[in-house]
Amino acid sequence: MKQVTIRALARELNLSVSTISKALRDSYEISAETKQRVLALAATLNYKPNPYASSLRGKKSRTIGVVVPEVADSFFSLAINGIESVMKAMGYHVLICLTHEQFDNEQLILNEFQSGRVDGVLMSVSRETLNGDHIRSLTEQDVPVVFFDRVLEEVQAPRIVTNDFESGYAATAHLIEKGCREIVYLGISKSLSISNRRMEGYRQALADHRLKCTENNIVACTNDPAENYRAVKKILLRKAPKPDGIVASVEKLTTTVYQACNDLRLQIPRDVKVVCFSNLEIATILHPSLTTITQPAFEMGRAAASLLLKAIKGTDVKGAEMVIPSVLIPRGSTAG
Amino acid sequence: MKQVTIRALARELNLSVSTISKALRDSYEISAETKQRVLALAATLNYKPNPYASSLRGKKSRTIGVVVPEVADSFFSLAINGIESVMKAMGYHVLICLTHEQFDNEQLILNEFQSGRVDGVLMSVSRETLNGDHIRSLTEQDVPVVFFDRVLEEVQAPRIVTNDFESGYAATAHLIEKGCREIVYLGISKSLSISNRRMEGYRQALADHRLKCTENNIVACTNDPAENYRAVKKILLRKAPKPDGIVASVEKLTTTVYQACNDLRLQIPRDVKVVCFSNLEIATILHPSLTTITQPAFEMGRAAASLLLKAIKGTDVKGAEMVIPSVLIPRGSTAG
Repeated sequence: MKQVTIRALARELNLSVSTISKALRDSYEISAETKQRVLALAATLNYKPNPYASSLRGKKSRTIGVVVPEVADSFFSLAINGIESVMKAMGYHVLICLTHEQFDNEQLILNEFQSGRVDGVLMSVSRETLNGDHIRSLTEQDVPVVFFDRVLEEVQAPRIVTNDFESGYAATAHLIEKGCREIVYLGISKSLSISNRRMEGYRQALADHRLKCTENNIVACTNDPAENYRAVKKILLRKAPKPDGIVASVEKLTTTVYQACNDLRLQIPRDVKVVCFSNLEIATILHPSLTTITQPAFEMGRAAASLLLKAIKGTDVKGAEMVIPSVLIPRGSTAG
Repeated sequence: MKQVTIRALARELNLSVSTISKALRDSYEISAETKQRVLALAATLNYKPNPYASSLRGKKSRTIGVVVPEVADSFFSLAINGIESVMKAMGYHVLICLTHEQFDNEQLILNEFQSGRVDGVLMSVSRETLNGDHIRSLTEQDVPVVFFDRVLEEVQAPRIVTNDFESGYAATAHLIEKGCREIVYLGISKSLSISNRRMEGYRQALADHRLKCTENNIVACTNDPAENYRAVKKILLRKAPKPDGIVASVEKLTTTVYQACNDLRLQIPRDVKVVCFSNLEIATILHPSLTTITQPAFEMGRAAASLLLKAIKGTDVKGAEMVIPSVLIPRGSTAG
């Protein structure tokens, strides 16, 4: 297929190349009627601007990058849907890149984005990320970055987060209210701000209810399901004191916890009650149905996308922070 | 941060700009020793090539695009992990774009990819896709395309698929073996080749077991969960003949089927037996655990990525087709 050029459009419409170019850039110098004729023909002939040439002239790519640890997690897949719902309406192209929770991947991706490929970036940092130089390199080249959910505290960038401290607190207080006294907290990375805030909420709820917080009740889970399964099984086998409640701070621990309870013939909620941070639609059909802290994933994606669009248009949003609260949904796993 | 230029590298190493440029392009004109000096300094100074300038000269972007309907489905998220495991090892950058099952989105994404942004594309078509002009436009511009899982038959492109006919057959035969006689098939798009093949397998299994295939037992599901729920409930409420088995052809119908059975107080597997095409890890902890047709998602991703790399390197893979079989895993939902 031959590429349709601006020159061909000009010839066809008997207009100058510069008029066509200005019409395509929506210049105020060109009348609405002419613009419409140009756009109609461009559409008919499937004209595509050369993005490199445009970019070299400093034009925007109308593309944004979304950098997330993974997509095999319903929080991220829902958040991406929220992001795309906003970006599509504004005619932006969305490129998704995965870090797989690895810092070196995150650096490579952001390096790629430095070369003018994208007008802005939405990101949730990996669990390994401690240093923000790669993010600052990007913002210093005028590529705005907006964090959503997972923030790197040391980087000053606008952010859309949820109330992780309050959610950790609510999950724990709910278990205490249901009679639990030995509550295990299953955490992930210690460097991740959201994970720490959820754990602080857990600690505070215990303290407010005059329950001792023993470090033995805090399990640091990893990226390896088999290892997590062993760790969860080990703590559930403990006799004195016997755990009677679990706060699982990430969705993928759901299967681990249910599987370990099944295999140990522990009955949920009779023997152990479970709350999980999860957006899994399937939570309702588990047996028993799962009590969740459900995050406003779609809404957070939407809000982050809107904030990034403002930043791309040059509005100063540096200090912006929006907190969209999560919701505790009590179900069968904490009944009784 | 100031951008490091080829000129700066040349000055630093006391070499010509053209030598640096050739070394970076791995030209045979430059000695291995010089190349190594150049690459070492480039890494130290965090030199990044200008992708637009390089692309205009016809250099590769070392980036591939992955076009899938969605990521809120464990098949696609696992397949993406397979793709990235190959591409990362080869130093390729992976950009993921979602069509949300809409043909117009798919066209927009492929149009974007026409401008030299990517060296090749891996895709699974949307359920709306009937026409392949947008795919041909890409391949005509020497951007190779490899299909995985969802193929558009009318486009001649290499493909990695699974044995959908045999899987639909196996799911149905398994239900018949377990005593089912009125088996409902929950399908999705009629234009999607995989969906049709699965349904043909269902029909063939019924025929081979001398069971009548009535069109009333085939339900066309949509993208709307509420609508699917109503349709599934309606067919399960049918008295004569009463359905006693369900083949659900896509993962997201799992929650719908379980929810409808729960709400109608139908017990799985006693009242109705269920097989679902699904890669959900959580299938094991459903109640009852779910019998699945599990697709080799990760392996299909890996194989598709390897095939695309061959195509990018200029190997002729036009007619290539690889079939990686799916596996029936019997569990509680078809027991007894």
